Amino acid sequence: MSECYQQALKSKEASRQIALLTTEEKNEALRAIANEIMNREKDIQEANNKDLEYGRNQGLSNDLLDRLRLTHERLLSMATGLQTLIDLPDPTSAQPEKWTREDGLQIENHRVPLGVVAMIYEARPNVTVDAAGLCLKAGNAVLLRGSSSAVHSNKALVSAMRSGLKSCGLPETALQLVNPESRDTVKELGQMRGLVDVIIPRGGAHLIQTVIAQSTVPVIETGVGNCHLYIEETAQKDMAIDIAVDAKTDRPSVCNAVETILVEKKWAEIYGEELIEALLSAGVTIKGDEWIQRLNPTVEPATEEDWGTEYLSPVVAVRSVSDTESAIAHIRTYGTAHSEAIVTENDEAVQSFQDQIDAASVYHNASTRFTDGAELGYGAEIGISTQKLHARGPLGLGALTTNKYVIKGNGHMKGGRS
Amino acid sequence: MSECYQQALKSKEASRQIALLTTEEKNEALRAIANEIMNREKDIQEANNKDLEYGRNQGLSNDLLDRLRLTHERLLSMATGLQTLIDLPDPTSAQPEKWTREDGLQIENHRVPLGVVAMIYEARPNVTVDAAGLCLKAGNAVLLRGSSSAVHSNKALVSAMRSGLKSCGLPETALQLVNPESRDTVKELGQMRGLVDVIIPRGGAHLIQTVIAQSTVPVIETGVGNCHLYIEETAQKDMAIDIAVDAKTDRPSVCNAVETILVEKKWAEIYGEELIEALLSAGVTIKGDEWIQRLNPTVEPATEEDWGTEYLSPVVAVRSVSDTESAIAHIRTYGTAHSEAIVTENDEAVQSFQDQIDAASVYHNASTRFTDGAELGYGAEIGISTQKLHARGPLGLGALTTNKYVIKGNGHMKGGRS
Repeated sequence: MSECYQQALKSKEASRQIALLTTEEKNEALRAIANEIMNREKDIQEANNKDLEYGRNQGLSNDLLDRLRLTHERLLSMATGLQTLIDLPDPTSAQPEKWTREDGLQIENHRVPLGVVAMIYEARPNVTVDAAGLCLKAGNAVLLRGSSSAVHSNKALVSAMRSGLKSCGLPETALQLVNPESRDTVKELGQMRGLVDVIIPRGGAHLIQTVIAQSTVPVIETGVGNCHLYIEETAQKDMAIDIAVDAKTDRPSVCNAVETILVEKKWAEIYGEELIEALLSAGVTIKGDEWIQRLNPTVEPATEEDWGTEYLSPVVAVRSVSDTESAIAHIRTYGTAHSEAIVTENDEAVQSFQDQIDAASVYHNASTRFTDGAELGYGAEIGISTQKLHARGPLGLGALTTNKYVIKGNGHMKGGRS
Repeated sequence: MSECYQQALKSKEASRQIALLTTEEKNEALRAIANEIMNREKDIQEANNKDLEYGRNQGLSNDLLDRLRLTHERLLSMATGLQTLIDLPDPTSAQPEKWTREDGLQIENHRVPLGVVAMIYEARPNVTVDAAGLCLKAGNAVLLRGSSSAVHSNKALVSAMRSGLKSCGLPETALQLVNPESRDTVKELGQMRGLVDVIIPRGGAHLIQTVIAQSTVPVIETGVGNCHLYIEETAQKDMAIDIAVDAKTDRPSVCNAVETILVEKKWAEIYGEELIEALLSAGVTIKGDEWIQRLNPTVEPATEEDWGTEYLSPVVAVRSVSDTESAIAHIRTYGTAHSEAIVTENDEAVQSFQDQIDAASVYHNASTRFTDGAELGYGAEIGISTQKLHARGPLGLGALTTNKYVIKGNGHMKGGRS
């Protein structure tokens, strides 16, 4: 029996105890966890320094090193995040749906924890704490399979969080770090159907596709966003340009940033140059089709590959389209069903776009950057689902639960009622 | 490009048209389909006779031949089932959740069709019509991959249903039969992530596990039910015996029938013989542990394998337990999280059982046979989910939908608000 399988067995065992906690008991544990993280700040930062040093020696980019770094502010923000979770309603304590059949059989449909959640993610240690907090609040145990480049930081964080659990008399095995040194653990977790209830991969497209291909455990696909902004003929100039710049540059490295702008030619004939200049001034590299290249000599040629690329950087593809149908057809071909926006003053175009675009979020006259649990009012989020099963869009606490029918009779039989 | 892949592409195309239909248009199509099935009764029965003849030559059991058979009554009951669907509310026309942020950004969360549903099932031709009706009513296109032993019947049914669609001016490709002669089509469908939105396998354990193992498309696991009835010390004698007989014999071949009865020794010491006799009189073969074998000489010895067996026939395993905790431990080890029942007058035992048993349906003093869409008031059902993601228990129309955020702004930017 592998170490990972043993951990999963312990996780299932712990999940049964966690599932029975009251909301107040879970909140107390979250409070203890937040305190322990701040109490152990020095240990955590020392561990983090080891990861950073190793990362530098391995030649990690400054961007990746920055994601890995745990400053005082970042630790404080983890603790604040846990406090936010404490304030959110417990999805499992909601009143169940109830109904009674004519023969008196009473049916209740309760929300209950999923059980064991496995998170598979990359080098951001904040996911370790966010995921643990969300899973606990919803009554689940969690197996954390982070990146080997953050192994010391994650060990220190998990050790602090487990102390918090222990101080409340709860099983430490509700939070376990799975060995990140072995690729096999990703595959192993994926095969533990019946033991692991759901796998949530969080990271780049390659990670997510690998997890999906290797897993028989249900997976929630998250995060890959090849998002589009379509500027229709009647779009207000300033609004369209502002939204384009915001959706591309507010935070280019995240999944809800825009990667391709589709511009209707009639609009672009008048305002296209100004759009391009605004993007260039904001430091964006532009790749355009031939029609767009005519607008500005710095526009680089876009290839077929660009339409399918999630740049996650200050680069945007721009394509001219002749009408709303062409824009929709482009998005259907290249989109990842994450966040798609139209800027227009034409109600018919809005309706057609919203009806025909099949995505987690469809926007009218707003930036795609709002596809985010906190922005939609869900508090924390464990990822953004781009699949249709279970939940689509930002995943909150509710997505970490399932349902259970509780049925009460008084000797009710199905065949014996006549 | 394989035939199956081409069918899936056409299905996606058709799903876009079906998704935009009004409830009335969908109901009209269901009515036309029901009429066409009855109009073509002669053709359908001729086709069915071919399947029956082939089945007899292949030595199919009488039980399987019976499942395959399409009588006038069964066709009528298909048509009635479609009428029931017409009367059910359309899940996609429910009012969306709506809220507005302080900055005026309007958020709506709509229920929308899943898109393309692939059903993979065995030799029951009624699933062809049930699944097509449910998928259509929820606004989906459906790929039907039935069994080769029902191929003529399925072709005739699908041909009738497609005529119905055509007569309403709707794309016939919304209903397609996938070649059942090739095992490859099951695997192919499973790899069409992004094109096929969900796979629902319906049938025996082997079929379901094969589909899960081969698919990257999200799968809803259905139907395997190793269900338990636990008779606690304080159970009323008559109630416990009635429920045991009903849960085992009302319809032994279905997934919500009981397969193992756990009896508390203190109860069985007094009433055990009577329980065994009642089951024997109802024609049930009993396999018991040593303690149970003492009660009646006809009880056969149960092996470890029996605890894990879904008999789907008039056979039941009976095991003696010493308390509620042992019963729960047994169910955790051998159960399939489908339907689990306790008969007791002890409130503490009820609470402990309901809290600790992790299953789609947990019963108190009632037969497990009520785990069924129609019994719970959902009208038709496409299967009973035994996994936790998306939906657990009987799947109704709502399980054939997903959500879509529709967000309206007035130039809303995330970074530009300061």
